[in-house]
Amino acid sequence: MTLSQPPRRDTRLDPYVETYAARTNDLQVSAVRALFAVANRPEVVSLAGGMPNIADLPRQAIGEAFAKLVVDQGIQAMQYGSGQGEPFIREKIVEVMAEEQIKANADDVVISCGSQQGLDLVTRVFCDPGDVVLVEAPSYVGAIGTFKANQCNIVHVAIDEHGIVPELLRHAVVLLRSSGKKVKFLYTIPNFQNPTGITQTLARRQALLALAHELDLLLLEDNPYGLLALEAEPIPALRAQDDERVIYLGSFSKTFAPGFRVGWVLAPHAIREKLVLTQESATLCPPVFSQYAIAAYLDQFDWRGQIRTFRDMYRARRDAMLQALTEHMPPGSTWTHPKGGFFVWLTLPEGLDSQAMLPRAVTARVAYTPGTAFYADGLGSRNIRLSFCFPTPEQIAEGVKRLGDVIVAEQEIHNTFGIESDSFVNRRNLTPGPAPDTN
Amino acid sequence: MTLSQPPRRDTRLDPYVETYAARTNDLQVSAVRALFAVANRPEVVSLAGGMPNIADLPRQAIGEAFAKLVVDQGIQAMQYGSGQGEPFIREKIVEVMAEEQIKANADDVVISCGSQQGLDLVTRVFCDPGDVVLVEAPSYVGAIGTFKANQCNIVHVAIDEHGIVPELLRHAVVLLRSSGKKVKFLYTIPNFQNPTGITQTLARRQALLALAHELDLLLLEDNPYGLLALEAEPIPALRAQDDERVIYLGSFSKTFAPGFRVGWVLAPHAIREKLVLTQESATLCPPVFSQYAIAAYLDQFDWRGQIRTFRDMYRARRDAMLQALTEHMPPGSTWTHPKGGFFVWLTLPEGLDSQAMLPRAVTARVAYTPGTAFYADGLGSRNIRLSFCFPTPEQIAEGVKRLGDVIVAEQEIHNTFGIESDSFVNRRNLTPGPAPDTN
Repeated sequence: MTLSQPPRRDTRLDPYVETYAARTNDLQVSAVRALFAVANRPEVVSLAGGMPNIADLPRQAIGEAFAKLVVDQGIQAMQYGSGQGEPFIREKIVEVMAEEQIKANADDVVISCGSQQGLDLVTRVFCDPGDVVLVEAPSYVGAIGTFKANQCNIVHVAIDEHGIVPELLRHAVVLLRSSGKKVKFLYTIPNFQNPTGITQTLARRQALLALAHELDLLLLEDNPYGLLALEAEPIPALRAQDDERVIYLGSFSKTFAPGFRVGWVLAPHAIREKLVLTQESATLCPPVFSQYAIAAYLDQFDWRGQIRTFRDMYRARRDAMLQALTEHMPPGSTWTHPKGGFFVWLTLPEGLDSQAMLPRAVTARVAYTPGTAFYADGLGSRNIRLSFCFPTPEQIAEGVKRLGDVIVAEQEIHNTFGIESDSFVNRRNLTPGPAPDTN
Repeated sequence: MTLSQPPRRDTRLDPYVETYAARTNDLQVSAVRALFAVANRPEVVSLAGGMPNIADLPRQAIGEAFAKLVVDQGIQAMQYGSGQGEPFIREKIVEVMAEEQIKANADDVVISCGSQQGLDLVTRVFCDPGDVVLVEAPSYVGAIGTFKANQCNIVHVAIDEHGIVPELLRHAVVLLRSSGKKVKFLYTIPNFQNPTGITQTLARRQALLALAHELDLLLLEDNPYGLLALEAEPIPALRAQDDERVIYLGSFSKTFAPGFRVGWVLAPHAIREKLVLTQESATLCPPVFSQYAIAAYLDQFDWRGQIRTFRDMYRARRDAMLQALTEHMPPGSTWTHPKGGFFVWLTLPEGLDSQAMLPRAVTARVAYTPGTAFYADGLGSRNIRLSFCFPTPEQIAEGVKRLGDVIVAEQEIHNTFGIESDSFVNRRNLTPGPAPDTN
């Protein structure tokens, strides 16, 4: 290379393409993103997003509390803070976790910029490129995205209606280790899983913990929906039963509001230290004003009562969705019956492809997230994640009705021409990476 | 490994030590951190931290603006947002950058969780482990920390009183490339540099940009202090003179308040796309409420007037520091005369070691940051960064007086026993990694 003759940048689409890190070349814009932009039009019922419904928060009173916060504590709340997060909100978080039988010390809590950043911090602390992360199949699209962005080798472990299947987990770990792979942790969402709505039973949790002990395996428990149980009280968290082998991710995004970007990681002490150092190099400190704001909310408001209000609201929406599915889904469709959280997992009649069907659904003014987004390996083409969190019960009923019509029409095309089931095989290598799960 | 016999964890200090990523094993707690905890005692004058003085912000009015924000726009401000950041604040940021002659499009701005996260995002987009990042010597401790945490190979390029020395930069790039190293970018703080307070002259900037063009080298321009010029108007930013080869980092931490954690990256379009994808996997979206809050501040307050007020306040503090240094430093000491920003860079008389001296300074009730924190290679033992941003002029005068006494006493010990200059050599391999620069 002659230094006085720089490479001709103008002839390439991205002049920096040879300069990026290896991880960057794997990043892809989701092909469904453009479609979601269309799906945000008011005439479309979106059953796609994971946005909580925060319209009923007492905004007048919250605004007054924030005004007082700025006047009384603004000098601290608007200043740099601790890389670990502020002590008083970590104390509050210990109280929140106690609602799920978790005993913890505030010193073992690290605040993150949303629990998404908790995921990223944990991954950065543990994973070199190529290290194996075990992930429930299907699982949260944003976790898959973070593991991919950190160049992890994602190995799926299937779940059934009771959660992760211990025998399959054992099999995967033994096989991977025998071939010399480094298995860093299992990522699991025990409560009202995203995307399936499935909850690990207590027996399954105990089996999982016993297996983790036997295999010397770390568990990364992600629990954003645990307090949004719509029927019985929640089952004790994995972390409530084991404080040595479980790293726990929590969030205020679903029990208060996501815009503050305050999540947390609860980790054994040695890991907590590494997380803090990683947080410091990533952000110096997580959002300070947000931490004061949420602490003020927890201090001055009946947050437990607000969660009960949220539960009632989401229960009505879930019921509207299950009712509409019963009314409008054609034979051959099946779906989960979540006992909490935000999501129903729909399986289409054989031969249909949810991603291929999406443009036609959006044309029919209903949007959803295709199942392939929740797998790292291209599976899920017959599945759909339906969210009942954001639209009203009336919108949900209308949206599911539209979806039923689209599926029926799709079935007719399939039965006549048999196109879709083949196209899946042809297209699976082109399946794009998942998009973030915020809309 | 027998699966039924997990390794004996109890006998090791950190049971997870074999599980961490390679990058994690390089993370170190700074040895000066414990000392800084002591330095935060009220009787100690801390000249160590980089905290802005935000005590004079109009908190009553800001609180009222936030209350109105929650009532009027809370449903959006407390919800998930865009991975790139909200459009309206990106428009506002374009206005802020125009104050430094930067012409930009809001579409090329990416919001980060403080500009520290901007640094991390850029590093993640470009750097594989072992890639070279060129860094001014000395430079911002938090940047060195991020580059280290991302396993970059930090190569220093010396600065003189006019900023980075182009001949040394050329030499470094040619040498590194001829030995097959990948040089990803040069990290530079042209205005009132942290830690030296030195400002790149216009001629030096032009030479740097010409050299970057010739060498096909990306520049990462970090400009948190640009609007805090204490004498003449600021010199045009590098980005104001080149929009193809400069990635620009901006921040509200010094011109408004750091606790919201809102910084930004302005980058050429192709790089901007990669930054957004990386941001999405890192946090889903940067703090949304913070963006609304800062946009409300920029909209409803005389932020330019506030910056003029900050300038007057910091000018008085800088003048107090320079005056006190003239009065109290013994012969053989030299220091910079910053025209803006927060910092003075002090060089101790020959034979003294600023890190070894720190415990004695804290005992004498004055704290500073030893120069070694600002080098990746153990240099800087004769240097001290003094901050004039946070303490009052009276505290600064008293702190510098105490420091002068400590240095004189240290010189006497050195002249009598000649200990310190040797101990540097013995200790340099033990020099800890830098601590974050928030206190």
